[in-house]
Amino acid sequence: MRAFTHIAIIGTGLIGSSVARAVREKLPESRLSGFDRDPATRQRAEELGLFDAVHSDYAPLAEADLVLLCVPVGAMAAVGRDIAPHIGADAIISDVGSCKASVLNDLRSALPDATIIPAHPVAGTEKSGPDAGFASLFEGRWCIITPDDNTDESDIARLEAFWSALGANVERMDAEHHDLVLAVTSHLPHLIAYTIVGTASDLESVTRSEVIKYSAGGFRDFTRIAASDPVMWRDVFLSNREAVLDMLQRFTEDLTALQRAIRRDEGDTLEDLFTRTRAIRRGIIDEGQDVAEPDFGRDHG
Amino acid sequence: MRAFTHIAIIGTGLIGSSVARAVREKLPESRLSGFDRDPATRQRAEELGLFDAVHSDYAPLAEADLVLLCVPVGAMAAVGRDIAPHIGADAIISDVGSCKASVLNDLRSALPDATIIPAHPVAGTEKSGPDAGFASLFEGRWCIITPDDNTDESDIARLEAFWSALGANVERMDAEHHDLVLAVTSHLPHLIAYTIVGTASDLESVTRSEVIKYSAGGFRDFTRIAASDPVMWRDVFLSNREAVLDMLQRFTEDLTALQRAIRRDEGDTLEDLFTRTRAIRRGIIDEGQDVAEPDFGRDHG
Repeated sequence: MRAFTHIAIIGTGLIGSSVARAVREKLPESRLSGFDRDPATRQRAEELGLFDAVHSDYAPLAEADLVLLCVPVGAMAAVGRDIAPHIGADAIISDVGSCKASVLNDLRSALPDATIIPAHPVAGTEKSGPDAGFASLFEGRWCIITPDDNTDESDIARLEAFWSALGANVERMDAEHHDLVLAVTSHLPHLIAYTIVGTASDLESVTRSEVIKYSAGGFRDFTRIAASDPVMWRDVFLSNREAVLDMLQRFTEDLTALQRAIRRDEGDTLEDLFTRTRAIRRGIIDEGQDVAEPDFGRDHG
Repeated sequence: MRAFTHIAIIGTGLIGSSVARAVREKLPESRLSGFDRDPATRQRAEELGLFDAVHSDYAPLAEADLVLLCVPVGAMAAVGRDIAPHIGADAIISDVGSCKASVLNDLRSALPDATIIPAHPVAGTEKSGPDAGFASLFEGRWCIITPDDNTDESDIARLEAFWSALGANVERMDAEHHDLVLAVTSHLPHLIAYTIVGTASDLESVTRSEVIKYSAGGFRDFTRIAASDPVMWRDVFLSNREAVLDMLQRFTEDLTALQRAIRRDEGDTLEDLFTRTRAIRRGIIDEGQDVAEPDFGRDHG
């Protein structure tokens, strides 16, 4: 299988810069071009030496055989239109966005003749920007690839090999199913975390200082997720609206049932659920998708 | 100020065994007695050498000048009645429970003549049992002490000195305000985490295996909290019912507003909130209540 010889990364934030670092480490033969619309980010990416070259215009895209869009999902359509005149005929266009149906649709419209294979590495941290990336981000994480039925198997295999080389486990899925799965494993958790941090900030009866001081009781966990990139997440909720609203509806029903159990003093209902949920945590640790140490291995002094 | 010479710990789980370990390290002059109603737990506490002696009956309580109840808050009333015939006249009775108004009420009823000073070290992990404890658990965390107006200042000062010696920052608060503060910084986060893990487990459209595989998108954070002790948390929600239901109501209103913004495509509303919530995370890190490293410092291979 032909490895990619020239990888273009559009958007040099947390994920784009992590891909660049991982390529340098795992695929050192590949040429790496970075693109970012923000001058300060471009300058920082250059200072960090993440790419062979960092560009502000898309003309150098012509040489790339993999073009990876690492921008918020709401920006895919516009970036797709901007790169359209520049991409090579044999290039594979992919992305790392958290929604796949909207991305496939947006890129297909912008680039009707291109080979488009959307992908989503399920990995990240709450930090943003080129300084936040690191080469091992994708190690042992899953990368979901959502090709449509018309995509050549050999092109899909090349993209799968790319993500495997970066340390990821690769899975194929159709875009709609991806969006449903991620609505529950990623989008709903973020929405809830943002909400509760907002609720806590707006109380009159409890001061912000108290919320911060006593956050080790559980709240602080939610603040990490709620510190994630605001524009990226705004776009996710708007782009995966139906699946998010569906999951939110189910969550609200379940929360209402617990609320009722608390009000009616139905301890067994609570204890049954709280016992059942422990099994999922064990599954995640057994599958290597989280650390086994208590408290995420946080440093306890 | 007189340090405690004989500390009795009732309940040798995560918190009780952590207190024992911290006392051994920081207050080695004190005699330590452990009590647990569960024979297997008692045996394990003995094997671990956490106490000078581990007892199944409460007769040895007579010699203790600090009796620390480390049991679920729903068990306080019964344990209070059981120890009533045995405690010394000068002993201070305290606890580590996550609700304070109900505990004060339950212990006052069971021990009308005792010196009762409820306390709550805001610290823990998702693990349970005597093996899960460690001496540094309280380092840099807050311990909230909720004495009533009739308590002698010198007794309060002794208990404060005890928790300070174990590494905690100490704060005083009335029990009702404690319960409101902890409802938002601890109880509501746990309730929400348990709910979303339950919701994810019950989907028909997404398999349990998919939920586990793709949990690194955010969901796995919630599973840690939702792996906490089921009986302890059942009791918390039933014992702090009014404050929990009040906070839950506010959370639900805020979530409904976000749901509406998503449905109506109001990106600015989302982005404004998501930007605002970052500040709370910074406050928590600046105050030393969480680690500054991305992703809680999780090991990224």
